[in-house]
Amino acid sequence: MTASEVRALFAVASRPEVISLAGGMPFVQGLPGDEVDSVVRQVLRERGPVALQYGAGSGQPALKDRLVEVMAEEGVRAGPDQLLITVGAQQALDLIGKLFIDPGDVIAVEAPSYVGALSAFSAFQPRYLLTPMDEDGLVVEAFEQALRSGDRPKFLYLCPNFHNPAGVTLSAERRRRLVEVCRNAGVPIVEDNPYGLLRFEGQKRPSLHSLDPENVFYLGTLSKIFCPGIRVGWIAAPPDALARLTLFKEAADLCSSNLNMLIAETWLADGDRWRSTLGRLVDIYRSRRDACLEALEAHFPPGTSWTRPGGGFYVWVTVPAADTRALLPEAVDRKVAYVPGTAFYPDGSGADRLRLAFCYPPEDSIREGVRRLGDLLRERLAA
Amino acid sequence: MTASEVRALFAVASRPEVISLAGGMPFVQGLPGDEVDSVVRQVLRERGPVALQYGAGSGQPALKDRLVEVMAEEGVRAGPDQLLITVGAQQALDLIGKLFIDPGDVIAVEAPSYVGALSAFSAFQPRYLLTPMDEDGLVVEAFEQALRSGDRPKFLYLCPNFHNPAGVTLSAERRRRLVEVCRNAGVPIVEDNPYGLLRFEGQKRPSLHSLDPENVFYLGTLSKIFCPGIRVGWIAAPPDALARLTLFKEAADLCSSNLNMLIAETWLADGDRWRSTLGRLVDIYRSRRDACLEALEAHFPPGTSWTRPGGGFYVWVTVPAADTRALLPEAVDRKVAYVPGTAFYPDGSGADRLRLAFCYPPEDSIREGVRRLGDLLRERLAA
Repeated sequence: MTASEVRALFAVASRPEVISLAGGMPFVQGLPGDEVDSVVRQVLRERGPVALQYGAGSGQPALKDRLVEVMAEEGVRAGPDQLLITVGAQQALDLIGKLFIDPGDVIAVEAPSYVGALSAFSAFQPRYLLTPMDEDGLVVEAFEQALRSGDRPKFLYLCPNFHNPAGVTLSAERRRRLVEVCRNAGVPIVEDNPYGLLRFEGQKRPSLHSLDPENVFYLGTLSKIFCPGIRVGWIAAPPDALARLTLFKEAADLCSSNLNMLIAETWLADGDRWRSTLGRLVDIYRSRRDACLEALEAHFPPGTSWTRPGGGFYVWVTVPAADTRALLPEAVDRKVAYVPGTAFYPDGSGADRLRLAFCYPPEDSIREGVRRLGDLLRERLAA
Repeated sequence: MTASEVRALFAVASRPEVISLAGGMPFVQGLPGDEVDSVVRQVLRERGPVALQYGAGSGQPALKDRLVEVMAEEGVRAGPDQLLITVGAQQALDLIGKLFIDPGDVIAVEAPSYVGALSAFSAFQPRYLLTPMDEDGLVVEAFEQALRSGDRPKFLYLCPNFHNPAGVTLSAERRRRLVEVCRNAGVPIVEDNPYGLLRFEGQKRPSLHSLDPENVFYLGTLSKIFCPGIRVGWIAAPPDALARLTLFKEAADLCSSNLNMLIAETWLADGDRWRSTLGRLVDIYRSRRDACLEALEAHFPPGTSWTRPGGGFYVWVTVPAADTRALLPEAVDRKVAYVPGTAFYPDGSGADRLRLAFCYPPEDSIREGVRRLGDLLRERLAA
């Protein structure tokens, strides 16, 4: 499934009569609109000419100070001088690709992986080493075995918290083992963490960056804890790599939007505000996750199975012997949409999987959407 | 001169005691601040949840309709479905590089060329075919000759209006000849036009795109006619290329900022407003250009020469036998900054040139800055 097919799917899924469990759109209606307005007005009133001007290629320094505080919530200790601000974390993926990948190079990714990371990396024509996952995230032993038997990958990309699409979280024990394996093998880690702060329950696990700052590129974003419309992400990287990434960033777009960076900085300047907003968003997403899991239990046929995410946006469903891509048009006819599993594998596998996103629709719609899909699967599996 | 050296220079030049004729920062203080505020408030009030959400990868459709009107001001006829909205025109350059350049490929550029274009393209490791310029822009005959004797370039990149850094404009006659030459040779043209609407006097020349839409990639931006802080640029491209550029854009950053695109759309929705604001900006820049040229006449030593731009931001100065890069620290000691000519050539030439930007400082500062620089050059040339 190509990026353009995913785009076509999202166009269909956005029709009002379709319940979309496809796109991972944050529920921005959960933000306090008046406070967002007031932040934007404050930026224009107090720093209008700066907001409208070109900015520094590596990003507004004061915003970096705030992002250091955001990272600290997850135990990531990186200083402002270790950061490059990007256009969402997606741009960080593109810059990482440009830094590391020459055509034909091997890079390691989880199977499944975030579709946008695969798009970003694929533009640089790598070969993929696919590493299996289970309920505890990436299977480190399988990765070790692959390292012993093949080319050393230029890096390992993974999403350890509330994985997109798999919904699982890498166990603490595996984290410790993984950073050791990668350090010993000379394989840098790219730790993508868009969802870590959207934790519904349980203990937080140590970030990979905190376990080995010199070998881990850490990617963060405000898209899920604030909003994606301002396109603010960042990367924490070792000094030499950071300097090169910054040059690539400047070559790619000169600088991020000063207006957007100042909005982000001002939003984050009030620690109570952003933390309490985040708490409300987590409550909303937890309820939606619960609705999704309950509906799966109630409506999905025997033989199907799914992950039980402790945070984030996604449930990953296995439908044995199905072709979820072929099934999608029928699902859309019944006015429910999902993303077929094939979108998340660079090798065309994943046809027996599908991703459900519970982040955007309200609980009742989630229940109804899962019911419609369950009915369809039940009929097809019976046939 | 590398991009990082240019950045270091801009850091020095931004010290308040230094008169900077270095950076090409638009004079955003010339915008009607109240009206900008009111546009932003309107966006948040009427379309807040859309502004804060992810957007379409190819850009907000209604903004494309407005950009069609902006292009029409310069005789460019391209429909909204031919456009991809980018993060400034800089991102368009990066995407063009990704589309066309494999390491070692030849691309043709003007000598001198916009430093940011060279940065964007160089990330993809091309070889450069440098095409000379004179007072009427790119010397088409020289380009023809180079085509006959070497590899066919993957594209020709040029800035035909009020060139950065050269300040010159490609003559109408050469435009007609150039599109013919390129069409016959199968060389696509990348027409970068950030300054075309900042015309101080004289007739507008036909855009290259209008002369051969099927062979010209047209790059536009709102950075100079509105503001750079919202990072809105665009590219008009033939259909097949547009589809691929859109995929690359999505891989690079998913989508541009919806907030920024809606601000741009709302700003442009009032045709009287944006055109009258543009008229005031043109008046400001014309006065500054006049101040710069008068001061050059008054203070620069015999033997130096410079271009007389009919629009845009830049005057390009020739200082025979000088090394303007070596001279820069002395200039900064005397509290004036410029960009040495070497920044604008990929082959290290240009040491006897320098670029003066007259866009940002007020007239008195421009006169004083040019006087300081003239004194320095006079002493050095006498020595």
